[in-house]
Amino acid sequence: MNDFSELSVREFLAALASSAPTPGGGTAAAIGGAMGAALAEMVAGLTLAREKFAPVHGVMRSLSEEALRAREDFLVLAREDSEAYDAVVAARRLAKETEAERDARAHAIESAGRLATEVPMRTARTAARLLAQLPELVEKGNPNALSDAGAAALMLSAAADGALLNVGINLPGISDAAFVEDMRRESAAIQAETRRLSALVLAEVAKRM
Amino acid sequence: MNDFSELSVREFLAALASSAPTPGGGTAAAIGGAMGAALAEMVAGLTLAREKFAPVHGVMRSLSEEALRAREDFLVLAREDSEAYDAVVAARRLAKETEAERDARAHAIESAGRLATEVPMRTARTAARLLAQLPELVEKGNPNALSDAGAAALMLSAAADGALLNVGINLPGISDAAFVEDMRRESAAIQAETRRLSALVLAEVAKRM
Repeated sequence: MNDFSELSVREFLAALASSAPTPGGGTAAAIGGAMGAALAEMVAGLTLAREKFAPVHGVMRSLSEEALRAREDFLVLAREDSEAYDAVVAARRLAKETEAERDARAHAIESAGRLATEVPMRTARTAARLLAQLPELVEKGNPNALSDAGAAALMLSAAADGALLNVGINLPGISDAAFVEDMRRESAAIQAETRRLSALVLAEVAKRM
Repeated sequence: MNDFSELSVREFLAALASSAPTPGGGTAAAIGGAMGAALAEMVAGLTLAREKFAPVHGVMRSLSEEALRAREDFLVLAREDSEAYDAVVAARRLAKETEAERDARAHAIESAGRLATEVPMRTARTAARLLAQLPELVEKGNPNALSDAGAAALMLSAAADGALLNVGINLPGISDAAFVEDMRRESAAIQAETRRLSALVLAEVAKRM
């Protein structure tokens, strides 16, 4: 069962705490991202609810839509992350008696490993993309919800960094050097960008509080 | 309805995204903390499951128990945070026609505001206390779960910082200067400590990955 979105919050947390291979950090990162997206949507909604913020309603509507899409994407990624890791575990358990079996197993491990890297990379990208909108949300959004906008940035940033840890831990098992190099380069770029953006958002929040 | 732990993950996220005053950033911070605690528990469990880590099983057992307690505390805090904010909203809506009514309302706002500050401060303390155990979890825990230990630190750190934003946004409404000063001092101390600890954990994770 990898569709964690239908578990109760309490059950999901118990599943995360258990020693079963999934759900793990990649799924937690995606759910953290979904919380960040939900908070961004709330802040945009609280801005749209007040006539006095009418001049920024256009921006807030598109921000709200983007946050909703990200929330839905994160829920899919939470499931896919666990599926990808389950496939890695299954590949490692394949028979390795004959040469043909060993070949097939190495192949299965490589392709499962790639997927277990690509899924958290998509989580990290989704988090970074929404985080890039948050300076505008803080600047133009309802100031009563400042702390919520800040909490959204913290969650999205933790989601991106947590997902990138899952990218990093899977890379040593992948033999395609060009793929590994691309992933490392993109990881470093996203990490630098989320660090910059979350510091910017939190400084803006602190200034206005 | 403030017992979010019984909602499905999907429903909880929808409630967070809605423009209703609660749940908001304080509740999201507590749930983020619960995810961090759950991941720490998983890493300890994956260490306890292997005989070769027997020399550290004693440490892992106490870490696992502390993480479980924190997870349960965070779920209570998630509910209490929303209850406290609902009380602030209710206090602001009290009648203010007569002098007696205005006095009663000011009193209610003050005490609701204090509670809405104390609850996220407890969330921040719980997150910081567990985060302080994570360097040992990374150092002695099952290295296969390194990225999960790192993700736990990221979640606990976001939980502490997010909760402290909720402390900060409520302080200007509180007239008791000594209380405000105590809260500001403790916020700064926790923030410095979580920054130090999460940087330490992530550096250790990076070194071992």
